[in-house]
Amino acid sequence: MYNYKMTIAYDGTKYNGWQKQTGAPLKTIQGKLEHILSLCCNQEIQLIASGRTDAGVHAKGQVANFHTNEYFEPQSILDYVAQYLAQDVAILDIKVASERFHARYNAKFKTYEYKIDTGLFANPFTKDYCYHLHKNLDLEAMKQASAHLIGTHDFASFTSMKSKKKSTVRMIADIKIEQQNNIVTLSYRGDGFMQHMVRILSGTLIEVGIGERTPQNILEVLEAKERAKSGPTAPANGLCLVDVEY
Amino acid sequence: MYNYKMTIAYDGTKYNGWQKQTGAPLKTIQGKLEHILSLCCNQEIQLIASGRTDAGVHAKGQVANFHTNEYFEPQSILDYVAQYLAQDVAILDIKVASERFHARYNAKFKTYEYKIDTGLFANPFTKDYCYHLHKNLDLEAMKQASAHLIGTHDFASFTSMKSKKKSTVRMIADIKIEQQNNIVTLSYRGDGFMQHMVRILSGTLIEVGIGERTPQNILEVLEAKERAKSGPTAPANGLCLVDVEY
Repeated sequence: MYNYKMTIAYDGTKYNGWQKQTGAPLKTIQGKLEHILSLCCNQEIQLIASGRTDAGVHAKGQVANFHTNEYFEPQSILDYVAQYLAQDVAILDIKVASERFHARYNAKFKTYEYKIDTGLFANPFTKDYCYHLHKNLDLEAMKQASAHLIGTHDFASFTSMKSKKKSTVRMIADIKIEQQNNIVTLSYRGDGFMQHMVRILSGTLIEVGIGERTPQNILEVLEAKERAKSGPTAPANGLCLVDVEY
Repeated sequence: MYNYKMTIAYDGTKYNGWQKQTGAPLKTIQGKLEHILSLCCNQEIQLIASGRTDAGVHAKGQVANFHTNEYFEPQSILDYVAQYLAQDVAILDIKVASERFHARYNAKFKTYEYKIDTGLFANPFTKDYCYHLHKNLDLEAMKQASAHLIGTHDFASFTSMKSKKKSTVRMIADIKIEQQNNIVTLSYRGDGFMQHMVRILSGTLIEVGIGERTPQNILEVLEAKERAKSGPTAPANGLCLVDVEY
């Protein structure tokens, strides 16, 4: 058994997310990659990713691993896949990993970026990678609000996950908020993010930025442990998984 | 009469080029902008651009002007158009120009960029803005070849323009060739470019870059004044009009 670790980038615009779906497997990143890798390796390949990404969400550094019975040169896998893969998905790196490496269980930190284009017109060249919101964002207020989110908290208010059995406690190590020209980038680094968590955090911080919430209000939202108290789920196209650390 | 000068950016992927066509005017940048500006200004607006761009070609700094009978605040035009314009077109700037300003006749220099992605996989986030060609390009040879193109020459070998009556003499002030990661950018500044000229220049320089032509061969191509002697017309998606100087 050989275990391969891949780093993958994708423009998620045209996909129903990472996770393979029975109805239309090739409309997902996982389904598309598994299909080509299975042909390449002449056996059924199953990918284990660091986590799912939603429909329309992008990645610059998704990580996934897969096992093969036979040994293949990493470069020969790349060369094969490059012939057949659509241009909106790219394998940035592939190497043989230790037998025990597991892309989901071994992930220590993930970094997501959420981008907002605040221009009157969206930048045509990044329109698929930014949420277009022509409003002035008060970055200082957003930074104050984000400080309340850093650390280990119960983020039950910031997920659309319905299960009451699973823990909703997560640790956010850092949130950076930066502006370059019209583009505001919210960068989150943490030990794990639940379904829609980064988009709900971003929707809530945007409400702080436009003055619809105070930075202090974030404390009440955390305390409530109730989805209804946080802001809207910001649109998928602004979100990108940029890094997974092991 | 009032004369407005606009600077426009667009992702040309989904358009049949700049110039309005009778069959499907809204599939062109000109047709789309004229339609919205006519509604905004309550009169038929005709745009005069610095020049056409082909189907699939992009712009970061196209310039166009138009006349109105009534005066409108430039900002109110922007606000109106921003409501209705698709996200792949943006007006970067608008101002009142002198009555005589003509976007085509007054253009002194234009700068075009042609981008080539030489990676095994195309970068998913710039796939629409680069020609994907996984080959090693010899930039030194391309620079030597480009030196022969700089200056005032008869570029008859580098256009698909058929008319024998019009002059094919143009002046290229500068060609820059740079690489950043996998992306090679060819940047052309000149007093005017004929139909397909930048794409044919790029297709020919690429042939030098992959060793199919010598840098010296460019002199023979110029001399021949024959389209058949130059290289292929490089794909439209790598081309962008970045600046027009007046």
